[in-house]
Order: sequence, then C-alpha cells, then structure tokens
Amino acid sequence: MVVKSQIKFIKSLQQKKYRLQNRLFVVEGIKTVRELLASSLKPYKVYVTDASIIKGNSRDIEVISEADLKKMSGLATPNKVLGVFHFPTPKPVDYSGWVIALDDVRDPGNLGTIIRLCDWFGISDLICSPKTVDCYNPKTLQATMGSISRVNIVYKELQSVIEDGTMVLGAFMDGEEVYKSSLPKAGVLVMGNEANGISKEIEGLVSKRISIPQFGPKTAESLNVATATAILLSEIRRS
Amino acid sequence: MVVKSQIKFIKSLQQKKYRLQNRLFVVEGIKTVRELLASSLKPYKVYVTDASIIKGNSRDIEVISEADLKKMSGLATPNKVLGVFHFPTPKPVDYSGWVIALDDVRDPGNLGTIIRLCDWFGISDLICSPKTVDCYNPKTLQATMGSISRVNIVYKELQSVIEDGTMVLGAFMDGEEVYKSSLPKAGVLVMGNEANGISKEIEGLVSKRISIPQFGPKTAESLNVATATAILLSEIRRS
Repeated sequence: MVVKSQIKFIKSLQQKKYRLQNRLFVVEGIKTVRELLASSLKPYKVYVTDASIIKGNSRDIEVISEADLKKMSGLATPNKVLGVFHFPTPKPVDYSGWVIALDDVRDPGNLGTIIRLCDWFGISDLICSPKTVDCYNPKTLQATMGSISRVNIVYKELQSVIEDGTMVLGAFMDGEEVYKSSLPKAGVLVMGNEANGISKEIEGLVSKRISIPQFGPKTAESLNVATATAILLSEIRRS
Repeated sequence: MVVKSQIKFIKSLQQKKYRLQNRLFVVEGIKTVRELLASSLKPYKVYVTDASIIKGNSRDIEVISEADLKKMSGLATPNKVLGVFHFPTPKPVDYSGWVIALDDVRDPGNLGTIIRLCDWFGISDLICSPKTVDCYNPKTLQATMGSISRVNIVYKELQSVIEDGTMVLGAFMDGEEVYKSSLPKAGVLVMGNEANGISKEIEGLVSKRISIPQFGPKTAESLNVATATAILLSEIRRS
C-alpha cells in the first residue's frame, strides 16, 4: 500500500522542476526498467503490479495495485512497472574521441533519438546547452529505449565546455558537403535547434561547417535534426 | 458560416476509415497548407480564420470563426488554417532509380520522417505494405512538413510490386556492413517493422542483406527505422 503523499510525489516527477529538485526520474515499461536495473543507475524505487515481473533487490521493489500505478503513471495506459531512478552524476567529458553537442534542441523525441544514436555509434559524451529539452522528459526516455544509462549527458553552456583548439564541426545548410570532407578522428559535432539551427554565439566556435547535400529537383527544406545527426555520425564512423 | 454537418464531416477525416472513403485528408498550419496549395495537390477546401492568411482561388477558401475551426480541428490549439486536400492519384512506380519499400512500418512519426527523407534524397517512389500506417495520418503529415506532395506513395502488397530480377536490398541486423558494400545505381531498399524487422515473406524477395554496424562496447539494441533509413539513403546517394 502506497501512501497518498508518495503517489503525489512520484506523479510530480513528470515535471522537470520536481525532477531537478529531487534528482530523480521515472521510466515506465518492463523492458526499459529491467535494462536500467541492470545498468549502473541507482534505483530509488520500482513499483510493480505483480512481483514476478521484476527480479532485483527486494528493498527497491514494491508491489502496488493497478489503481495506485494508474495514479502515479504519466501514461494513459500504465504498463505494470514504473521505475524511479536517481540522476547519475555526470562525468567529465572525454575529448579524446568524438563528442556531440546540442545547441537548444527542443523536441523531446529528437533528443531521445539522438541519445540512442550516440549509444549505437559509441559516442560516450553528449553535451546539451541549458535550453536543450530535459533528457529525463518522459517522451525523451521513451525514444532512448534504455540508452540513457550508457551515454554521459552533461548540461552546460557549450562555450564553457568546448576547449580552445578543439576541432568543432557544425552542421549548416551551406557547409562543405560532408561526403567530400575529410573528418578527423576526434572532435565535437554541434547540431542546432530545430527551427533556427546553430546560434550566432556558438557559430563562432565552429572550425568547420559541414552539410548533407540534397538530391532531386524539388526537395524538403531541411532534414530533421535527429536524422541529420544519424547521417553525420555514420559519416564520422565510416571514415 | 459552416454548417454543422460540414464540421462533422471534416472532423471525421481525422479517422483513416473516412479518409479512405472520401479520398480526402486534412493538414493544419499556415506553412504546410501554403506549401500544399502551391503543389500539384488539389484542394477540396481551405478554412481560415482570417482571409489575409492564405492567397489562392477564392472558391477554395472559406473564412470561418475560431470556434468552428476548433470544432473541426484535430489539434488542441488549432492554428488559423485547416486545409482539406484530395488524395493524389498514385503514379506507376519508376524502377529506373532507387525505390523505398516499407514492410509494415507502424509508427506515424517514423513514416512521416521517412517521406521527408525520400524528398531530401530525391527518391520519387515509396511503396508501403497495406499494414503500414496511413500516410495521411495527422502525425505522419506533421512529420513530413510538406514533402507529402513530392513523393509518390503507393500502398500495395510488396510481393506484387517488386518485379522479378529487381535488385532488392534489405536492412537486417546480420547483413553485410553497408560501408563495405558496393551499392548499385538502382534498386529497391526494404525497411522492416519497428519491432519485428522484415517479415519472412518479404525476406524471400531480398537479393542482398545489409546492416549498419554498431560501434562502442555496449550499444543500443537497434536503430529506429527512420534513422536507419536516413543512414542507408545517405549511403545510396554518396556512392
């Protein structure tokens, strides 16, 4: 039996403000909760409607009614398991390989897809500008599919974390065609906001402007930032 | 003044059943409606709350109240313009270049992103298996950003449209690394369902299995189908 105040507390974590205050976030669904329990993330509490669903330290697991799960869930149809995890402590960014930096990416689904791409392409560090959407937003977590535990995500002003002399690639509409560029073994790849691209302030940090060429006679105005990141990460790794 | 039955009719087009019955679909938002009016698509009616927003044939445009727009819109906050367009007549698929075929892609956002990618990469024809989500689903249209008017989308059993002797590339987890593959100038690229990949029946049509390699020690289980399509289209065009 969960007390009312606890239900209210868990439900409050749907909002960024309370996540930041408590340094806790919520994931839902058996598969992702299992994956996060097996990761280095520290559980605060895992609520299940059936004890057999999740194996783990019994101190962390609490069996609750479906009615209570419904009250604390952010989903219209909750899915048997709701896990609450502590924020991991961000690690220092390792500039010896490729790092991705996001300049105010606002769509939670795009951020989630980019985290999953970082995981796939072995990018350990993702730097997000403070105005980038919260990586613990439920829609972001839904798109990451567990990759959230394997990518070091740091929220900081990009200016403050990109060191002088670092090779900084920036994705622009008018950059050099990426297929013709020779890409180094390490650097920072900056991706801009969905509507406005890379901001003026960050543009000054960019050492090389690259672009993905369009094909065909009449084409789309731009690529979605997540698909553009996919293509550029593929280019970085294939070379 | 729009009559009640007309509002009800437009609202019904939020559902696939009524879209198919009437061969009409709805798009919302100034930018996309303007883009579709400038395309080869035939408008059925464009509803606006302010006559100055949209220029066009006055027969096609009707000024309505915000209250009426709210009643016919699929959005929580309607955006001044709602356009209703006729389905375009699908054209025969041109196999002289690359064609994309989707085997039961179910997520409307993924389909929308793939349509936008086809447009960007100059792919004129997209074949969708009958169980692929409807390309006129509001969430799909939101992700396509007007590209819907520039890609020929055909819903048919993939078996019936892929001709004997066609080069068919299929994306699989265990395929040949795409970076090492030599890709032809034309063919069909098949992308599978989000959860199950390419079905057994369609697998039999595939002449070459390709995959996008993973990097890094612990990685995501799979790539999202839209980001995988982005990478493979980029590989097809860069070569």
